[in-house]
This record gives sequence, C-alpha cells and structure tokens, in this order.
Amino acid sequence: MVRVATSVDVAKLAGVSQSAVSRTYTPGASVAEATRIKVMDASRKLGYRPNAIARTLITRKSRMIAVVASYLDNQFYPVVIEKLSKRLQSDGYHVLLFIAEANQESDELLMQLMQYHVDGIVLLSATLSSGLAKVCAASGVPVLMFNRVAQAGGTVSSVACDNEAGGRMAARALLEAGHMRIGYIAGLEDSSTNRDREAGFNAELAAHGHRVFTRTVGHYSFEGAQVAARLMFGRADATQRPSAVFVANDYMAIAVMDVLRGELGLRVPQDVAVIGFDNVPQAAWGGYSLTSIEQDAQAMIEATAKLMLAQINDEAVAAQHMNLPVRLVERGSTGKTV
Amino acid sequence: MVRVATSVDVAKLAGVSQSAVSRTYTPGASVAEATRIKVMDASRKLGYRPNAIARTLITRKSRMIAVVASYLDNQFYPVVIEKLSKRLQSDGYHVLLFIAEANQESDELLMQLMQYHVDGIVLLSATLSSGLAKVCAASGVPVLMFNRVAQAGGTVSSVACDNEAGGRMAARALLEAGHMRIGYIAGLEDSSTNRDREAGFNAELAAHGHRVFTRTVGHYSFEGAQVAARLMFGRADATQRPSAVFVANDYMAIAVMDVLRGELGLRVPQDVAVIGFDNVPQAAWGGYSLTSIEQDAQAMIEATAKLMLAQINDEAVAAQHMNLPVRLVERGSTGKTV
Repeated sequence: MVRVATSVDVAKLAGVSQSAVSRTYTPGASVAEATRIKVMDASRKLGYRPNAIARTLITRKSRMIAVVASYLDNQFYPVVIEKLSKRLQSDGYHVLLFIAEANQESDELLMQLMQYHVDGIVLLSATLSSGLAKVCAASGVPVLMFNRVAQAGGTVSSVACDNEAGGRMAARALLEAGHMRIGYIAGLEDSSTNRDREAGFNAELAAHGHRVFTRTVGHYSFEGAQVAARLMFGRADATQRPSAVFVANDYMAIAVMDVLRGELGLRVPQDVAVIGFDNVPQAAWGGYSLTSIEQDAQAMIEATAKLMLAQINDEAVAAQHMNLPVRLVERGSTGKTV
Repeated sequence: MVRVATSVDVAKLAGVSQSAVSRTYTPGASVAEATRIKVMDASRKLGYRPNAIARTLITRKSRMIAVVASYLDNQFYPVVIEKLSKRLQSDGYHVLLFIAEANQESDELLMQLMQYHVDGIVLLSATLSSGLAKVCAASGVPVLMFNRVAQAGGTVSSVACDNEAGGRMAARALLEAGHMRIGYIAGLEDSSTNRDREAGFNAELAAHGHRVFTRTVGHYSFEGAQVAARLMFGRADATQRPSAVFVANDYMAIAVMDVLRGELGLRVPQDVAVIGFDNVPQAAWGGYSLTSIEQDAQAMIEATAKLMLAQINDEAVAAQHMNLPVRLVERGSTGKTV
C-alpha cells in the first residue's frame, strides 16, 4: 500500500485553494502564473501526480497508446506516425514510441510495453507470434497490426490496404502500356505486404497470358533494392532485361531509379518503366515523378484510431481485419506526363 | 488515499508465487507462458500496475521523456526521432510523442505534458516563452531545446549545431566556385536557425567584399520554398537572377531544385548552383545530388541524451547551451562530381 499525495496536500503546502491546484492541472483553465509556479513547486516537493496519473489509478487508463516502429527511413512511416499521433491526441491519447531493432525479439519489447501500462498497442509493419498474442489478450490490452495482415480469426486486429488489388493494378498498367518483359523486385519475403502484392501482380499477369520475366529481392531496404536492380538490369543485351519493373514499395523504387539512371545509364521510362507502392510524398518530387499504388494513409489511420479506441473502451469489441482500397497514381516513370 | 494492488494480491489470485509475478514483469526473466498468462489475467482483474507505474510512485520517475515535434515532413526529424528514441531506450527511457500543430499554443501543450508526469521534455525546433520556462523550472522537469538556441543564461538547455559557421561555409563554397550573384532563400524569419545561418552567410560574403544578390523567404515549408524560388528565378534575363543560391534547409532546397528544373527549365548546377543545410538522407539521392551543410545528428542526440539524463538524475546539473560542429558535403548541385 502506497500513500499518494492529494490535491489537498498540495494546496496546503502551496498556500493556495484546492481549486487553484485543480485549475493548474486543467488544460485551458485560467490561473495566474505566480499561483501556477507555487502549485508546481509544492507538487514536486510532495511527489504529487496530477490528473493523468491519478486517472490511471482510478480508471485503469493511462491515456497512452504504444506505437512500435522500425522502418522510419521508409518515408511512409513518418507520415503514419505524425497523422496517427495527431488523430489520437484529438481524443486525448498520446503515443509512446518504441523503436524496434530490425531483429529484436518482440517478446522482450512487449514486456517493456506492458510495464508502461499502455492502453493499447499499434504495431507498424510488425507481426506478433501466437504466444505473444495470447499474453496480450490475457492482459486485456488491445493490439492492432498496421500494414500487416493477421491470421484469419486471430484475436489481434489488423488494418492494411488491399495489397492484392494494388499488385493487380500495377500489372494491368504495365500490360496496357504494351510491356512484354516485366520484372518484380520483392520486399521482405515473409511479410504479408510482399506476399499479397506479388500474388495480385502474378495473378493479373497470368490472366493476360503472361508471367513475370525476372524477379529479384530487395528486402524493403535501400541497399537491398540497389543490389536487386543491379542484378536485374546489369546486362548489356536489352532483350535480356525487363522493359518495365514493379517494385514492392516506393522507398526501394527510388533506389532502383538511382541505379538505373546513375549507374547503368538507362532512361526512365524510355528504357525501363518503373512502378512503386505507397505513394510517399517523395514519389511526387520532380527528381523521380514515380508512378505508384497509393495507400490511403489517412483512411487507414482513421480506421486504426476508431477500432483501437472502441476496444479500449469496451473489451467486448471483437478484433477486425480491414483491407482499405488503393488507387493507381500515374506519373512520369511510366511515361505519363504530369 | 488510494489503495493500490500489490504483487502479493496478484500472486494470490493467480495461484502462483510472488516470485512468478515479479519474473513476469522483469524483462528477460524466465517464466512459463501459462504462468505469465495467469499473472496478466489476475493483474488485469485487480488493476495491478507492474514495475513502471510502481516505480513512478516510489521514485517519482516515469521513465518517459516527452518529445514535442511539428515538422515531420522535413526529413531531418524522422531521423532525429528514431535515433533519439533508440538512444534513450538503451538507458531504459521511452519517448512520449507530442505532435504540435504549427500554430498551437505551447502553453496548452505543456500542461498536457505535465499531466503525464514525464521526466523530461525535448522540444524539436520549438522555443519556450520565458513564462513557460519558469513553470517548467518550478515543476522540476528539465527541458531541452533541440536545433534551437536558448537565450543566454536561460534555465532551458539547448543543443544545436554551429549554424553560423555553416552559413559561412556555404558562402565560401559558392565564392570559391566563382559566383558573383548569390541568392538566399530564408526559413522561418523568427527561428534561431535561420537567423544564425543567414548571419554567417552574410558575414562571409561581406568579408570577401560581396553582399547577397537577392533574398526571398520559404518559411521552412515545401510550398513556401516553391514560391520563393519562382520569385527569385522567374526572370527571362539571366543577369537579373542569381547564378547560385543558398537555401536554409535541404527540405526547401529540394523544392527549389524541382522549380528550377521542372518549371523554369534551368539546369543545376550549370545555370544555378544550389546548397542546402542538414544533409538529410535524400540529399544524397541521385535525383538531387544536393550539396549540403551537414548537421551531425548522432552527436547532437548523444549530447541531448547525456545532458537530459544528467539533469533528470541530479537537479543540480545546470542548463547548458551546446553548438556542435558542421561540415560541408559537396555533391553535383554545386558542380562536384560524386
């Protein structure tokens, strides 16, 4: 049993009214600066916790949602973190950020999260083992996977875009432009995004009597994409390399364009047409003008926030698996003038 | 007075030993999954707070550091947030993220921060009024301004790079390349970074008997930089526009290059040489090959983490104002081949 200082104790030590203490800790409430300083000084001496912590003890809510991220160099994620933070702030929640190392055990990270008593957990492009999913369920903390798809029927929600439809769109755009030799540069082989984008892409090629010309793997990294591009396009004989390539995300597609133009002296789109995925802000930059499959980040975030807050406020709300629509944004890298 | 459930209560309800409860909440400790699930289930039912919250009550430390950011579209900040998060995590602290609206009252935001009882506050490119600085001082929560400079003698620490030296370097590089008509595209007029970069730039020009040819303002925004570039370079007579421009950060310099090449048909560097500031990852991309003044983000973060943790652990550690070195990274946008 721990004795916690109350606002009465603080008011007494600060020599102000209890209402002044309350107003000091109410956002937007009016209180003289001198009063506020007295209150904060007394609070510090007594170790008084204002509303947020008191609220945690009473309501069991910390008003914090953990966001686990590991790919901030992919420009899609800063956008997501900014939009998601703003959206949750508008409902009085804040984001506690956990940066996972590429190969970090999620088990250890999750135990850290639990220690902070967060109200919910959003995993950006990370998956959860079934054992960990059970631990989360036992703790009553809702978990949501963003941009990854959960196993069907799992207790962990997921919000993603329709990656398979996006892969189909990419194939269709390149086929309609008359390309016969079409390559694919894959992301992480075991990710649901890569699996679904590639499946849609291959299915659409097959539906038109085609198949992928060559395939290399960039592992969703910048350096990996450079290596994959050199492998795919480093042949003198133009008929031995693709005339078009679908790259599993924009971050890699930009690295691929740099290798094509800067190292191999190939023109985009005249020698090689390029399509990416995500439609990050940089895809629209004049230096790339990259055609891309757009994920609707704003809609994905709205869905994430709504589902997460519903699960926090009512444990009976079931896990959901959402696939939001995508669209093709055509630019110069496939020959569309903008 | 609030009654808080203890690990003894949890062990009893879960039907396990107190040591099992403790091990469940100790990162890295061995505990069977079935036991862990029982403990978490009992914890949830009793509203038991494991270590982190208990530690807050006992030590008055929450192990959270608030990071206030508002410019995540400038590629410098995702890098900073990722590196700073990792650095603090290695010392057992986590980042509670607050995204400030461009014109949000910092007063209101700061009261929200205080409610979470964070151990420290890092402001990314934001300044603090002297009134708010006093409130923070009274609360005993150390505050540090990152990439902004505090008033001398202030109680609020600051970690920045030597912006003035960077401005001098930019001027020297352009003068040495023989440019006579050199423009400046400013960031936010009231920011210390813009003030110091411009002061160093102008001082170096003056030291060589020159002065800035034209100056426009981009307000550190992408659209603002586009407008500033059109104003500066939208003249048919080449002698009426600069042959080189120093842009106050890379984020704006990329927008400027897009306007120069995409809208005005000017070549970089043959018609206009461009230098930015920050050396963000995108400056090295082949589509831009942007010469830039590099801020040493890693050194700035190390200094930030060390000072912040020292102040958290010992209230007597005085505020410091650090200016870390910068260096010129030359690339194609000023005619250096790479």
